[in-house]
Amino acid sequence: MPKKIIVIGGVALGPKAACRCKRLDPSAEVTLFDENALISYGGCGIPYFVGGDIQNVTDLCSTPYHTVRNPDFFASMKGIKVLNNTRVTSINRQEKTVIARSMLTGQESVYHYDKLVLATGASPRKANIPGADLANVFTLTKLEAADAIRSQMAGSKVSSAVVVGGGFIGLEAAVAMADMWGVKVSVVEMMDQVLPGVLSKSLSTMAKHDLEAHDVDVYTGEKVLSLEGKDGKVCKVVTDKREIEAQLVIYSIGFIPNGQLAKDAGLETTPFGAVVVNEHMQTSDPDIYAGGDCCSIKNLITGKQGYLPLGSMANRQGRVIGSELAGVSATFPGYVGTWAVKLFDMSFCGTGLTADGAKKAGFDATGVIVEQLDKAHFYPEKSMMTLELVVEKGTRRVLGMQGACTDPDSLKARVDAVAATLQFGKPTVDDICVLEVAYAPPFAAAMDVVNVVANVADNVLCGRIQMITACEFMDMWENREKNNVFFIDTRPQKAGDAVQAKHPDWHAISLEAIQTHWDQVPKDRPVALICNTGLRAYDAALVLKNHGIENVCESMGGMQSVLKMGLTV
Amino acid sequence: MPKKIIVIGGVALGPKAACRCKRLDPSAEVTLFDENALISYGGCGIPYFVGGDIQNVTDLCSTPYHTVRNPDFFASMKGIKVLNNTRVTSINRQEKTVIARSMLTGQESVYHYDKLVLATGASPRKANIPGADLANVFTLTKLEAADAIRSQMAGSKVSSAVVVGGGFIGLEAAVAMADMWGVKVSVVEMMDQVLPGVLSKSLSTMAKHDLEAHDVDVYTGEKVLSLEGKDGKVCKVVTDKREIEAQLVIYSIGFIPNGQLAKDAGLETTPFGAVVVNEHMQTSDPDIYAGGDCCSIKNLITGKQGYLPLGSMANRQGRVIGSELAGVSATFPGYVGTWAVKLFDMSFCGTGLTADGAKKAGFDATGVIVEQLDKAHFYPEKSMMTLELVVEKGTRRVLGMQGACTDPDSLKARVDAVAATLQFGKPTVDDICVLEVAYAPPFAAAMDVVNVVANVADNVLCGRIQMITACEFMDMWENREKNNVFFIDTRPQKAGDAVQAKHPDWHAISLEAIQTHWDQVPKDRPVALICNTGLRAYDAALVLKNHGIENVCESMGGMQSVLKMGLTV
Repeated sequence: MPKKIIVIGGVALGPKAACRCKRLDPSAEVTLFDENALISYGGCGIPYFVGGDIQNVTDLCSTPYHTVRNPDFFASMKGIKVLNNTRVTSINRQEKTVIARSMLTGQESVYHYDKLVLATGASPRKANIPGADLANVFTLTKLEAADAIRSQMAGSKVSSAVVVGGGFIGLEAAVAMADMWGVKVSVVEMMDQVLPGVLSKSLSTMAKHDLEAHDVDVYTGEKVLSLEGKDGKVCKVVTDKREIEAQLVIYSIGFIPNGQLAKDAGLETTPFGAVVVNEHMQTSDPDIYAGGDCCSIKNLITGKQGYLPLGSMANRQGRVIGSELAGVSATFPGYVGTWAVKLFDMSFCGTGLTADGAKKAGFDATGVIVEQLDKAHFYPEKSMMTLELVVEKGTRRVLGMQGACTDPDSLKARVDAVAATLQFGKPTVDDICVLEVAYAPPFAAAMDVVNVVANVADNVLCGRIQMITACEFMDMWENREKNNVFFIDTRPQKAGDAVQAKHPDWHAISLEAIQTHWDQVPKDRPVALICNTGLRAYDAALVLKNHGIENVCESMGGMQSVLKMGLTV
Repeated sequence: MPKKIIVIGGVALGPKAACRCKRLDPSAEVTLFDENALISYGGCGIPYFVGGDIQNVTDLCSTPYHTVRNPDFFASMKGIKVLNNTRVTSINRQEKTVIARSMLTGQESVYHYDKLVLATGASPRKANIPGADLANVFTLTKLEAADAIRSQMAGSKVSSAVVVGGGFIGLEAAVAMADMWGVKVSVVEMMDQVLPGVLSKSLSTMAKHDLEAHDVDVYTGEKVLSLEGKDGKVCKVVTDKREIEAQLVIYSIGFIPNGQLAKDAGLETTPFGAVVVNEHMQTSDPDIYAGGDCCSIKNLITGKQGYLPLGSMANRQGRVIGSELAGVSATFPGYVGTWAVKLFDMSFCGTGLTADGAKKAGFDATGVIVEQLDKAHFYPEKSMMTLELVVEKGTRRVLGMQGACTDPDSLKARVDAVAATLQFGKPTVDDICVLEVAYAPPFAAAMDVVNVVANVADNVLCGRIQMITACEFMDMWENREKNNVFFIDTRPQKAGDAVQAKHPDWHAISLEAIQTHWDQVPKDRPVALICNTGLRAYDAALVLKNHGIENVCESMGGMQSVLKMGLTV
């Protein structure tokens, strides 16, 4: 008897697992259910469809050869039976059956399985406020919504829009609408920063500045209270601080894993509703697999169950499940949390924990930021890259790294290298100091920025320098009347002089000058140093230390970080 | 008494070690010797100076702030005494002294050290043929040579040039001359491919094609016998196969580590003359350190002593030595062999062993090539990337990866991620199948190309598909009269039909068609499949297998690899 495989869910993981299984075991009878009409689409592409980078919604459902991945395609090309518009309503584990109901006719049928795959995904968290059911209030996970949003845009029916939620999808949607359609976009985020949980306050300030520099208003630490409408359509967003006009609202406040079906079947789920799986992606019932956005997997850094609903995770897990279904053992060890997002000029990318996330997980952690060119400084094409390495103080263990750069690929290179080390051990700062990465002047500096951020972290952990963030430096500067701090700009003299001309409290003493003019620095006041990227201030701090001036701190990333955050002296 | 440190060698590692030591231990007396006038220049930038990307030779000797790193700079800014134009001629380990001779006056002096650093670098292998001493025959490691080459170019005194040696520097120089100055350049390489040792024959064919497509002639498997001159200047290169006119010749046939000083002092050196060091970069005398191009370090994959003379290695080792000099323990565990080179349209990058290198090192290895877009196929900006994963057959261990792409940063991202895994363990194919890398459509495909090359390697190692290289496929095709192979193009029907119209032996049976038309395929002949990148041919092979047609092979990387190699059907 051929093995009967049932896959519930037709996006990303489901089709991947089904196809892989059929390739390895052509005799298997694979049936894939999805409650929607469209299946196997690139959900991650939705913001790019809204933004006009992708012309047709069918491009998101197509192979690279423009073949639409519909039920016929799966039947003829993959030998997989697809029942779309069909919802699986329950699982009977004793009988090894599922009940499925047609969304069109309401008819229910029973299907037997030998192995079952839960690829039920996640649902966007819904707005639970007055006005949430007005027309033109969308979430951004279904192609149908994307189509509606884009036709509103293209029809010039929208002059201002509000995105609620400053996470990946929210910001991608904000960029798409502002960039392509010239719509006035505002982002409202309840937390005190955009990209909460994945970026430090410093890096998120850079993201915020990139949005604001492109005329997107960003309101953080602000809660949406209600939506107001006119003729049944949304026209205003009311927050706890203001009212914002909007003919279109996108809600993007996170996801809830679709784990109810599993829970109802008595499978183990987490308190937040995700299906728990082992390294083989098996649920607590070994004949039932789960993967993708509906399930929880192990965070390899904290060792705890976590959640990372990304299309890339789903695809890799799908192949593992497909192998297992065909009787070929395969494992998915867990995740470290690697992600990327492109805004306007800036891209952001990260892996592992942020400093705040690490503290929450019980690590005594700190983040160290550097700015450095990504290529040899004498090579003509290059970008200034920001990297923040997150390290545990006592053990020197590296827990994560995040970054910002105008060059998305170049940033990805550094983050992916560190991501790989996090997956293959417990790297220390010293390991990253000597991390071997590809070098030639068109690719990197001889001492690559990823080595440099570890070098600086080493200096910080060894107490050789006291670092503060650009935000902290600017706060100090704003409060200079009160704190008695002595500010020194160690950049080449001209650069510092230009600022000092405006602000006499800004002392321009270049690194060159400080070697002989250190006696101009008071010994009885705290000293704050800044330079262009951080290098010169470090050397200046060492000079001062040699002359007994030890109460010195340095602004991480120097003026480059200050500028990227949109701050001004 | 302050610690006396002597550093021999003023490029890359020497200054790095000296500065790091002074930062950690300001009391140390650090003296740096170099036999040349210019020190601390970016030697890797020389081809880019020749090619006009860098305007002034001083840019290569400058900090990012255009401060020239001359002896005065090191004295005033770093507290390091630099004696340039001074050669250290011998080391007395019992007395802990060195003898140094001024290259200007011939005067010799004795200097005491507590710790000594050998940063003597490597010398370009010299041409040992008639005519090697003619004018306008250069090597490309000294700024002085670079200046001379560029002024010859700029003065239009050169219409054709020959580069002897198809390694990194040779090819960078060839590109620089052809690209900027429109000079007719020929590359002569003794081995049967360019970039020998670091690329497979397949990938090196792509490099060769990129050169030839930009009017650089490439002669591999060809030996230079003599240089002929006129009025003392070179005018012709004579090989074992032809004569090539040239007003300028660059010899770039490798390096010899400058280990004689160490050998004379009784320190352990390798048979090829490199200084042997331990994990702390100490020579067999613990008070003497060595690093950079003069020393041999451990290959972490083979476990044997190896040699990787790259500026990036030198910089990272320099910091380790600097720490050690100041009494702070630090280690450099070894190398895996990660590199990058940009030619015209194509960049090449690699880490670890090639398949041939792995076989030489005793591994039962094979290389698996894929072609895939580096970004989501629906995202507008993307590049077709070639990756070759080198794996050990029995253990499934990953030994290296090399690649080719028009986007240098995007290629670096994939290679550096695998490089990191090689440094932190013994990754298997399965580890790379689930390697977690940053994903969003502007950064990667949901199933990234680095995962895909591992997936394909998995299929090859499990015997699910028999792969041949594009070169092997084209050889088969050329010899189709003899070998009786049945060729199938499984691309969408139109693409295959266009070729079949020219060649009736080219059977256009698309993947869609093969599901129902498999009976057109003879069961008694070997079958060779090709498609655009490899995906469709794999699925087609599975279809044929299900119908009992098992003597089937597939061309790795499909037509994309064929095209990149400059081959034509």
